Amino acid sequence: MNYTAEIIAVGTELLLGNVANTDAQMISEALSTVGVNVLYHTAVGDNAQRLAEVTEIARKRADLLIFTGGLGPTYDDFTKDVVCRAFDRELVFFPDAAATIEHYYDTVFCRPMPEGTLRQAWLPKGCTFFRNDAGTAPGCVFEADGSTVVLLPGVPSECTHMTQHRLLPWLRSRSAQVICSRGIRIFGLGEPKVQELLSEVMDEAVNPSLAPYAKTGEVMLRMTAKADTEEECRRLMEPMLAQVRTILGDHIYGEDVGSLKEVVVKLLREKKMTLAAAESCTGGLIAKRLTDIPGASAAFRGGVVSYTNEVKHAVLGVPQELLDTYGAVSAPVAKAMAEGARRITGADLALSVTGVAGPDKDDRGNEVGTVFVGLSSPENTTVRQLALGRGRERIRTMAAHYALDMVRRYLTEAEQK
Amino acid sequence: MNYTAEIIAVGTELLLGNVANTDAQMISEALSTVGVNVLYHTAVGDNAQRLAEVTEIARKRADLLIFTGGLGPTYDDFTKDVVCRAFDRELVFFPDAAATIEHYYDTVFCRPMPEGTLRQAWLPKGCTFFRNDAGTAPGCVFEADGSTVVLLPGVPSECTHMTQHRLLPWLRSRSAQVICSRGIRIFGLGEPKVQELLSEVMDEAVNPSLAPYAKTGEVMLRMTAKADTEEECRRLMEPMLAQVRTILGDHIYGEDVGSLKEVVVKLLREKKMTLAAAESCTGGLIAKRLTDIPGASAAFRGGVVSYTNEVKHAVLGVPQELLDTYGAVSAPVAKAMAEGARRITGADLALSVTGVAGPDKDDRGNEVGTVFVGLSSPENTTVRQLALGRGRERIRTMAAHYALDMVRRYLTEAEQK
Repeated sequence: MNYTAEIIAVGTELLLGNVANTDAQMISEALSTVGVNVLYHTAVGDNAQRLAEVTEIARKRADLLIFTGGLGPTYDDFTKDVVCRAFDRELVFFPDAAATIEHYYDTVFCRPMPEGTLRQAWLPKGCTFFRNDAGTAPGCVFEADGSTVVLLPGVPSECTHMTQHRLLPWLRSRSAQVICSRGIRIFGLGEPKVQELLSEVMDEAVNPSLAPYAKTGEVMLRMTAKADTEEECRRLMEPMLAQVRTILGDHIYGEDVGSLKEVVVKLLREKKMTLAAAESCTGGLIAKRLTDIPGASAAFRGGVVSYTNEVKHAVLGVPQELLDTYGAVSAPVAKAMAEGARRITGADLALSVTGVAGPDKDDRGNEVGTVFVGLSSPENTTVRQLALGRGRERIRTMAAHYALDMVRRYLTEAEQK
Repeated sequence: MNYTAEIIAVGTELLLGNVANTDAQMISEALSTVGVNVLYHTAVGDNAQRLAEVTEIARKRADLLIFTGGLGPTYDDFTKDVVCRAFDRELVFFPDAAATIEHYYDTVFCRPMPEGTLRQAWLPKGCTFFRNDAGTAPGCVFEADGSTVVLLPGVPSECTHMTQHRLLPWLRSRSAQVICSRGIRIFGLGEPKVQELLSEVMDEAVNPSLAPYAKTGEVMLRMTAKADTEEECRRLMEPMLAQVRTILGDHIYGEDVGSLKEVVVKLLREKKMTLAAAESCTGGLIAKRLTDIPGASAAFRGGVVSYTNEVKHAVLGVPQELLDTYGAVSAPVAKAMAEGARRITGADLALSVTGVAGPDKDDRGNEVGTVFVGLSSPENTTVRQLALGRGRERIRTMAAHYALDMVRRYLTEAEQK
């Protein structure tokens, strides 16, 4: 089945600008891994008439309709009712769905279920029910009049869970062919450079296909193949994967991984090494990112946010003389910061970042975007100077990326020795 | 003019899930401050045929059509062409627009303009041209066949600039009446509680209107009034503002302010006081938030991310005895962390956060969501115990909010003395 999809988000909070439609983004990215072509995103408020009109438009221009939101138990949750009317389905009570809702109340909320909660267990007749392990609103899929209709809860954590664990497996099961996909994550090369390096490979890529996506400060390559069997699918990808790995080398930081921070924590844990960070212009961003990951405490000991010279000196032990002679944004201070962080935390490795995030130059005339990143290891301390252009948010994000990538390279190079 | 709006985002990157449609969110929030009712968001790829169809649908169901994206100089930027065809307008060369593009290349990029760049200076005949100070693609607005059509660049920083400084003033100038609006920011009360406390006020609110929006961990009230003059508009709001202030008291952390972190930095700067932070479970999030703000260095000295007991002891000087007796997640340790951070950084005030962000209980059986937040000042050190429920991301976010709110309350209470 080669679906063309429209994602329809229901909720007035989207139209008020209260939240961004991150569900549509997440679902789109997920669908790209199974070869579904998303043609439209629509958002509409909690208004039954407008939702019905949007549904009529969508069924004419797409054959996979994915609705998010409006599946809850309250009066303004009417996505199911409107969609069932449009496709002439009745709602029937699903005892299995009711049991999972009751179970969720018993084990997670640990309180009695409010009246009306089981409204959520009424689903379109003949649908395949999608169990929700992350909340109470069940989802479902059904086919009618040439349309495939999917209903998912709107709460982002529930929508993500249902997309990954219910919708994607269902779509895979509907395909006569096996679709396999690989996400290759790249840091240190811009999208135009990746396109240039891979132009020949991409020109010839049909099955598997190969497409680059720019993410903030990095690039992801999505390789997707179709075949009759899982094994054949993998076999199709192998030669191209080998080509891509040869061309991009150690700019590839991982395949089918979540993010650079996850790769760093995983490598540290595998090697039983610990990390610390001394941050000036990134102001805690590196520590925050690493501690986003559950279980980071086995790998990350902590750090110092030294936003002033006094803290660099008093806490990290950066010699006052270095600060006076070279200024806070300098290679010698970056080196002393990394070494200081390593010493006071007792970590095996320590990062440092000092730079000018802007909006203005620093008092020594260093341009906005000038950043020094250091890494202190048992062997030595290395410092890299970066010119990260403009934009406070961008500079901080990129500096944190570069710092984590230094650790990643250190740990993987150690591997190769 | 009482517009009903549809926001149409053009760009295949949205449909691939490469980026979220944050422009639509930002524009929707901005439009709510001038009384424009947004009914639909649509996203469509770089496909002229589908964009033309989407435009036809939109003009029938909304009278203000706002397009974002596809205004650049390359072959796949055809939003202007498609929209002009739909509204039977020709594109003409705007010398003023060309001059601003040339100026941007001269002063910001400091390099020669690539060929084709001035394609961006061709705009719909008779339009009002919106100068872009944040990039090169100009925007515009024109009226045709009962529709008001706005074209804005898709790059979020440019779109935000153009919405705030071009679109909103233009919309205000078109209104016979003055619309004024106030955003009241509340922390420490959930949305249902705010609704309950304000139910009488909200029931009677017509002009001004009053609506609560839940944001992550906080609530915003939007009060909007219409009148013939600015003065009349403000006069209409005053009694309701006074009522709301009396009812919600110091749960209001600001009016028409960006965020809690901005309020905290502003208060610190006004009082010429400095802050430090000792973070365990928030792992640098508080430091990161404060240093998001340009110029934070005058108020925030830095901090320690003490993700392990060794760092709490060695860097912050938390007595080993306290760690052994009470465990890391305890009021005595939170107190010692805040005092240690204050001592080693020399800041006037220091925050501390220690808690269990999950996914599991800590080794002393403290439940996930148990968090202690401390504030050390020249007078004393206070510690609050919180039960923040479940969800690692949520717990960390809420803990950082509560900590910043402690500083806000300390600084405003000091004001009242």
